[in-house]
Amino acid sequence: MIDNNIILPEPTLRRLPWYLAYVDILRASGIETVSSTQISKALSVDSSQIAKDLSFLNIKGKTRIGYEVDALCDALSQFLGFKEVHNAFIIGVGSLGAALIHDTGLANYGLHIVAGFDTNPDIIGTTICNVPIYHIDDLQDYQRRLNASIGILAVPADQAQDAADTMAAAGLKAIWNFTPYRIKVTEGIVMANTSIYAHLALIYNRLSATT
Amino acid sequence: MIDNNIILPEPTLRRLPWYLAYVDILRASGIETVSSTQISKALSVDSSQIAKDLSFLNIKGKTRIGYEVDALCDALSQFLGFKEVHNAFIIGVGSLGAALIHDTGLANYGLHIVAGFDTNPDIIGTTICNVPIYHIDDLQDYQRRLNASIGILAVPADQAQDAADTMAAAGLKAIWNFTPYRIKVTEGIVMANTSIYAHLALIYNRLSATT
Repeated sequence: MIDNNIILPEPTLRRLPWYLAYVDILRASGIETVSSTQISKALSVDSSQIAKDLSFLNIKGKTRIGYEVDALCDALSQFLGFKEVHNAFIIGVGSLGAALIHDTGLANYGLHIVAGFDTNPDIIGTTICNVPIYHIDDLQDYQRRLNASIGILAVPADQAQDAADTMAAAGLKAIWNFTPYRIKVTEGIVMANTSIYAHLALIYNRLSATT
Repeated sequence: MIDNNIILPEPTLRRLPWYLAYVDILRASGIETVSSTQISKALSVDSSQIAKDLSFLNIKGKTRIGYEVDALCDALSQFLGFKEVHNAFIIGVGSLGAALIHDTGLANYGLHIVAGFDTNPDIIGTTICNVPIYHIDDLQDYQRRLNASIGILAVPADQAQDAADTMAAAGLKAIWNFTPYRIKVTEGIVMANTSIYAHLALIYNRLSATT
């Protein structure tokens, strides 16, 4: 359980998983303590920033010793919600949606994909990596039974807004948008955009500018 | 070919794909012109911002009419580099790497994954969606032959820095980092982070704060 109701700043939420990845590696190497100075050097983040970010957690470093690696791993992982199970639906099981179902590693971060939804008769009734695919018209029914909180949006861009509206109407509380379309949601729905195509555009632009 | 060597601001590169997704939908509906005011309403972006973003392109809107949808689609798609073919390698063909290979939709955005690299003997010598998987030790050899510019990093976090160093040494010009580890690269290497886990943390945090 995430033991807080604090809305954390986005930059903090971006950095905390870096710290977790780093201290996880230390733990695997048998290292028992780590200072914010060490984390700072490894990740090129200002050490006062690290101390500030970690102050959101219920964990205290010791003067001249730092943090216990074990406790810090557990605290970060729990604080970030990675130890809970969050039921999720995938809306749109084309190339990208199917790929996300294939990424079983997401389960290590608490994301439990329980069903996919599509309109393609060729895949409805099948399973991908044991995840059943249903018709989008049955979303509300399955939402009542499975009580997913997160809907992962992976439909073609021209269907993104309609699908998002359907998801909100079915009672999903969060939409994780993988489409390039900027969808609008009603207040109270949590939104996160993973802009794969924007990142590609960034890479292409920087490559063309350097050559 | 991207006909500029301008380093675009990241926020502009984030918004341009939204405009493209939107005008693509208009084109598919047979709509011939669009004003920045219309785009502004649809995407909730300030219309002066849109005009400013689009001023980077070699395209002019007409007073009281706006932009030709066809021309704007083509200009955006070309400007963003989506019409070129960019050869890419995937380093780390576990769950996430394999999933990215499965997402054949990336090819529509100019990303051509030509090979995957791993150390797992069970998958070396196999193909996934026609993409051959080689041993990571052969990266430099294949780089000489295939001349990929982009390396997609999808190894476990504890191998991320080593793999990134290997990629840079092999001559890859850009690293697209999907791991939660904050890698360091030498100057001149283009870096983009797609922080899937940070987005998950954001969703979990916002969900816990609203309930």
